[in-house]
Amino acid sequence: MDTTETTLDETILIRDVDRGSHYIRDWTGEADGNPSFVARPRSVAEVVDLVRYCVEKGLAIVPQGGHTGLVEGASARIEGGHVLVSLERMNRIRAIDPLNFSVEVEAGCVLEVLHQAVEAEDLMFPLSLGAKGSCQIGGNVATNAGGINVLRYGMMRDLVLGLEVVLPDGRVWNGLKTLRKDNTGYDLKQLFLGSEGTLGIVTAATLKLFPRPSSIETMFLAVSSASDAIRLFAAARRHLADLLSAFELISDRSVELARTMPDISNPLGTGAPYYVLLEASSSGPLDLEVLVGGFLEFAMEAEMVLDGVRASSVTQAQKIWAIREGVVEAQVKHGTYLRTDVSVPISQVAACIDEVEAALAETVADGVVLTYGHIGDGNMHFVVMPPRDMPEGPDRRSWIKASEAVIFEVVDRLGGSISAEHGIGRAKRNAFEKRASATQMDLLRTLKSGIDPANRMNPGAIFE
Amino acid sequence: MDTTETTLDETILIRDVDRGSHYIRDWTGEADGNPSFVARPRSVAEVVDLVRYCVEKGLAIVPQGGHTGLVEGASARIEGGHVLVSLERMNRIRAIDPLNFSVEVEAGCVLEVLHQAVEAEDLMFPLSLGAKGSCQIGGNVATNAGGINVLRYGMMRDLVLGLEVVLPDGRVWNGLKTLRKDNTGYDLKQLFLGSEGTLGIVTAATLKLFPRPSSIETMFLAVSSASDAIRLFAAARRHLADLLSAFELISDRSVELARTMPDISNPLGTGAPYYVLLEASSSGPLDLEVLVGGFLEFAMEAEMVLDGVRASSVTQAQKIWAIREGVVEAQVKHGTYLRTDVSVPISQVAACIDEVEAALAETVADGVVLTYGHIGDGNMHFVVMPPRDMPEGPDRRSWIKASEAVIFEVVDRLGGSISAEHGIGRAKRNAFEKRASATQMDLLRTLKSGIDPANRMNPGAIFE
Repeated sequence: MDTTETTLDETILIRDVDRGSHYIRDWTGEADGNPSFVARPRSVAEVVDLVRYCVEKGLAIVPQGGHTGLVEGASARIEGGHVLVSLERMNRIRAIDPLNFSVEVEAGCVLEVLHQAVEAEDLMFPLSLGAKGSCQIGGNVATNAGGINVLRYGMMRDLVLGLEVVLPDGRVWNGLKTLRKDNTGYDLKQLFLGSEGTLGIVTAATLKLFPRPSSIETMFLAVSSASDAIRLFAAARRHLADLLSAFELISDRSVELARTMPDISNPLGTGAPYYVLLEASSSGPLDLEVLVGGFLEFAMEAEMVLDGVRASSVTQAQKIWAIREGVVEAQVKHGTYLRTDVSVPISQVAACIDEVEAALAETVADGVVLTYGHIGDGNMHFVVMPPRDMPEGPDRRSWIKASEAVIFEVVDRLGGSISAEHGIGRAKRNAFEKRASATQMDLLRTLKSGIDPANRMNPGAIFE
Repeated sequence: MDTTETTLDETILIRDVDRGSHYIRDWTGEADGNPSFVARPRSVAEVVDLVRYCVEKGLAIVPQGGHTGLVEGASARIEGGHVLVSLERMNRIRAIDPLNFSVEVEAGCVLEVLHQAVEAEDLMFPLSLGAKGSCQIGGNVATNAGGINVLRYGMMRDLVLGLEVVLPDGRVWNGLKTLRKDNTGYDLKQLFLGSEGTLGIVTAATLKLFPRPSSIETMFLAVSSASDAIRLFAAARRHLADLLSAFELISDRSVELARTMPDISNPLGTGAPYYVLLEASSSGPLDLEVLVGGFLEFAMEAEMVLDGVRASSVTQAQKIWAIREGVVEAQVKHGTYLRTDVSVPISQVAACIDEVEAALAETVADGVVLTYGHIGDGNMHFVVMPPRDMPEGPDRRSWIKASEAVIFEVVDRLGGSISAEHGIGRAKRNAFEKRASATQMDLLRTLKSGIDPANRMNPGAIFE
């Protein structure tokens, strides 16, 4: 390694960072922190310079994408002595290979920008989540992002062919292959996927693409129980072959909340405790309308569904999706509250929902419980909001903690996970460490200390 | 840890192992080795006892499944001082969860046995390869097995939900969750997937299942070039939505060789340089016959296909698959020869085939070149057989080496991999180490020395 002292190009630095900027505040407005400075490198070489500078100065490094995460994984630390590295200027789409159904893209590219670029080539990148207009590919990689299409296309881990990573000592690992199959040694990219910036800085990725769907069918279905929703899911997987692309559960109470937002309505007259948003898509000349119509008929006859509507236009489909998105958007106005992101085996989803709702009705009877999520993946987002008149403060915080304990108890008992897709970050670190076995923690620490012996990368995220 | 000396249960040991048995000889008959003994544990507890015994005695451990690998990754070493651990007695299917589309199975379960068990529940485990009647789940995990359905369902890595692993120091890591989504810390199972027994002994796995297809359409198509085969693949991906499940290329010379086997014939009258075996499958009431028939018509009109036949019965479909299997089976009679397992981006497959065939025609003009493979994954198996009258010995070995160099040169130039699905083992170690970057090798060694500091597990496999 070079022994001359590294100096940084001042044009990549923000030394006096605005405390209200997105570098400091995340989507929830909860995060805060005191970085020595924010760095915005424009190239791999500038990332390398930056890392070597931090090595020399003994500074820690917190990599940041769109800062849309929900677990304070990419937020500056309250303690100083660290640098926040935003990849937002490295946002080029380097190459699209239509015949290989692949793309090479830099870490700072916004997910929705990538969507649009590949759609112009009649291709699709299937990862999709609420934050798609702000979140970045590097963050999607670092958090192994999930979202609404996981049941068909998998999580980010399943969509990555290769990575380029700047390691904690400033070396670059170039693993940017675009191969579907490559069994040469341990699959190093898996290490960095979902590592939340604790092992290196992802600077670029090669990703799988798919034919762009030419038909999409969206339905909104009323069901009488969570158990019927799961029966419906199993039937849909089979009946719709592998063309099922989304299967979202939304409780009646969640739909009611979404309806407080402008232009959102329930397209069904029948009241029901739960609704399912089901989407199927296909790229070929296959008659998806007939297939989906036949399934709806079958599901009604089998009494899995009380009532249902199939969108007959793109506008109608958007109105159905607006309900699902409205559930999230409407929450923001309600002060601090509990968001969760849990998963159980799909066969345990109905039990999980029934038990969580019953237990919460006892423990925090005065709260509002929203049940919704990607139940085709066994992933629920239980949200619990304190009564409107409960003031912010220690009482509200313990009310929220009590709700969380109720939910986690059921999830633990059913063999689930307390973080299905959001990751651990700093917000869930204690809950995670409490549940991990000694062997698991030891393996995690072995990997961390092997790759990042100085604990330079995002210290305090995932584990101490 | 217990300080009393571990003694082994003699009923799990074979002390005087038959040198012709499958423990010593692999499928190719090439492997050989001198284990101190063969152990056949019946439970996780017995595996733990065995590992602790090996720790005490300073013995290395080579885990073995069906011993069907092609790179000497699970073969006993020529050097002594090690124990061969066969998982064949740990072969229970512990639980099938139809509503979660998952199964928990022990490492020694034969792949085909698992296929049959889940089919009885109207489910499918999609991993399928030539050795399915002998290979075991633990070996499939350790080698990240591929096969004929990868383009739709992925490799073993994509099908594993969780693992149970006995670590090199005898501790057990229980990662047997059955969740679709679980973002809690680094994904430890990824470490062991494809690690070829160098990091621990996989004792059980939880796996994804799929609805069992109710319609399968199999076609055999004549194409005039590798380039047309790839155009056909891109069109098929789009036209057949996500229902394409296999896309195999077979050169004319390969079909000719297969026809030397009993009951194998070419169903097409038209001669052609290459043939494509295309399969689509679906679990729903979708009219796959119409979809596939429409595609065949489209491909003929677009002149991507010279001629084609669609199997109209299961027997006819089996006859088409028998050609593909016959290519492999017919090779065995030809003495030592070159098998390869390379991949390139799908967009480079045609260039790869054309360049390899042209270069081999110059370098080893007297040989027989067979081109076939899973080109829907960019994965070709070029096989080169020396002239029948070339005696075994150093000349034949250097003839084979020269052929390999020709193939690898093209693959390297096109950004490919010298081992798409077979792994590295001992047979490809030199070729791998020559191509890996210093950073890649350093990361690999960091992982290995972190998890297995004593280099107890399968020493010499993947790297020195």
